[in-house]
Amino acid sequence: MSTVTLAQGSGGRAMQKLIATLFMAAFDNPLLATQEDQARIPLHLLSEVGDRLAFSTDSYVIDPLSFPGGDIGKLAVCGTANDIAVGGATPRWLSCGFILEEGLEMATLESVVRSMAATAREAGIAIVTGDTKVVPRGAADKLFINTAGIGVIPEGLEWGAARLQPGDRLLVSGTLGDHGATILNLREQLGLEGELISDCALLAPLIAALRDVPGIRAMRDATRGGVNAVAHEFAAASGCGIELEEQALPLKPAVRGVCELLGLDALNFANEGKLVIGVAAEWAQTLLERLRAHPLGRDAAIIGEVVAQRGVRLSGFYGVQRTLDLPHSEPLPRIC
Amino acid sequence: MSTVTLAQGSGGRAMQKLIATLFMAAFDNPLLATQEDQARIPLHLLSEVGDRLAFSTDSYVIDPLSFPGGDIGKLAVCGTANDIAVGGATPRWLSCGFILEEGLEMATLESVVRSMAATAREAGIAIVTGDTKVVPRGAADKLFINTAGIGVIPEGLEWGAARLQPGDRLLVSGTLGDHGATILNLREQLGLEGELISDCALLAPLIAALRDVPGIRAMRDATRGGVNAVAHEFAAASGCGIELEEQALPLKPAVRGVCELLGLDALNFANEGKLVIGVAAEWAQTLLERLRAHPLGRDAAIIGEVVAQRGVRLSGFYGVQRTLDLPHSEPLPRIC
Repeated sequence: MSTVTLAQGSGGRAMQKLIATLFMAAFDNPLLATQEDQARIPLHLLSEVGDRLAFSTDSYVIDPLSFPGGDIGKLAVCGTANDIAVGGATPRWLSCGFILEEGLEMATLESVVRSMAATAREAGIAIVTGDTKVVPRGAADKLFINTAGIGVIPEGLEWGAARLQPGDRLLVSGTLGDHGATILNLREQLGLEGELISDCALLAPLIAALRDVPGIRAMRDATRGGVNAVAHEFAAASGCGIELEEQALPLKPAVRGVCELLGLDALNFANEGKLVIGVAAEWAQTLLERLRAHPLGRDAAIIGEVVAQRGVRLSGFYGVQRTLDLPHSEPLPRIC
Repeated sequence: MSTVTLAQGSGGRAMQKLIATLFMAAFDNPLLATQEDQARIPLHLLSEVGDRLAFSTDSYVIDPLSFPGGDIGKLAVCGTANDIAVGGATPRWLSCGFILEEGLEMATLESVVRSMAATAREAGIAIVTGDTKVVPRGAADKLFINTAGIGVIPEGLEWGAARLQPGDRLLVSGTLGDHGATILNLREQLGLEGELISDCALLAPLIAALRDVPGIRAMRDATRGGVNAVAHEFAAASGCGIELEEQALPLKPAVRGVCELLGLDALNFANEGKLVIGVAAEWAQTLLERLRAHPLGRDAAIIGEVVAQRGVRLSGFYGVQRTLDLPHSEPLPRIC
């Protein structure tokens, strides 16, 4: 069985061979940095699209490396691309840094790279520059990926959490907590089956279909920390409060089951393919219809509103309102 | 003693506090993404400088975290900035992804972050977006950093290894192998002292001073794999050969000592602040003088030339020429 060796991260022939036969072959595209240590992107490719560059990064350390609905490779492309897309930008170019543990099965790495390449290709995203490090056995757990991404925001598009106002409605693009519950079930061996599939998806096509809806104030993908973390970020950035309706939260039965079993709240669970959107009240219904018309937004719902009174609150099934604190930490490390 | 906890990577309050009090405070700048998951950079800031965006990434996994002449924080800024600068671009914006091991001393992290911030500030580089992950004890070794960087290449500047031609001269900007020998001495406890200091430095100011020298074909910073790896890359990209003169290679006595002690070749040692430049023969002397006039280029030397006959060769002290193969691997893992 072929495994990753220290030599493959050392700058010698072994590394060049790995890069050429695996990464370059899989990520092949006209802008890929093959002869220089940098990708060079003509600025007119940016200025044709908009007037601001969006730039974001995430490292992916998820355990296990693959899960129902995806793997670390798909996640590393979707996650960073989504962080760019939620600003209204079209994600276009990614960098990619691998940290590999000596002894990692080469078949695992190849599978992850293929998954990244396929996800990127499908999304019209080019992986244009990269780096590979190998650390000795025990110095990392199998495989970490960092991606940084560049996109361009169209002129005139001004989405940002600071623009939220009292009266605005909050929508989510679908069921909550699918990714977190899936990883929890897998890692804690809860043994639940059925509908537990990560929602890991590239949201750019859905967001592109929403760009012309007026009244959109802010958009965020609800990853680590879940919708609750986004609600707190929205509240902090706008100086307003957020009130959510428990009955309105779309949840898959299997996710509800995990939550009840463990006494956890799906609002705190990570999603990897769900938007939280703040929109002016008069456009909320239009936005909801637009979301539901798209395969990635079928289960969209209006889940709450922005209010003047600071804080984040949840109205329960019996009309009782309670404060939603941001937990000290999420239930689960290495969720993404 | 305060240490890093899993909660600080989990998307909850503990993470928000770490980001606000440590990262945001240290990296503070007008473009830093504080309310969104992305930095937004007006495109006119790019188009004022040039016509192509340069984009590069590196992960840093060096062991130990600090060393004579620098630490992983300084390295993470300089290394990626240098990869951008060698294309002729001015490095401007960096992303930064931390992977932290649970239990890492907070004082260590703070020191690394301060070092990154100071290095970036001095260089006029803004760290504009970031990410923090914490993995359980044993799943990573202390601290890894990824940076991705953006710069802009001035119009008309066309440096690239494919442009090298037979007759061109090769120069280095200073002594070879300082970084590699320093880490080797530290890690293998060779006990050598004196001049062993990493050359870790931001090369952009030196490169800026060279931009108007005519005849520059290609430039590379000789990191992992050393000058030998660059020579092989230059040869492969240009379809030419490279001949180096052993007598011309600038080496500090202490580095020469390490090499003789261990039977290693400084040409394969990593540098973190040294350029290899290919230049038309008629401009080699001008370039040499320009390099030597700058504090980062005082020990610059002409070390060889580009020839038609493929391969990389070294002429030794007695005039004997031998083929320089690219080694299977570098002598040392986790050098950068």
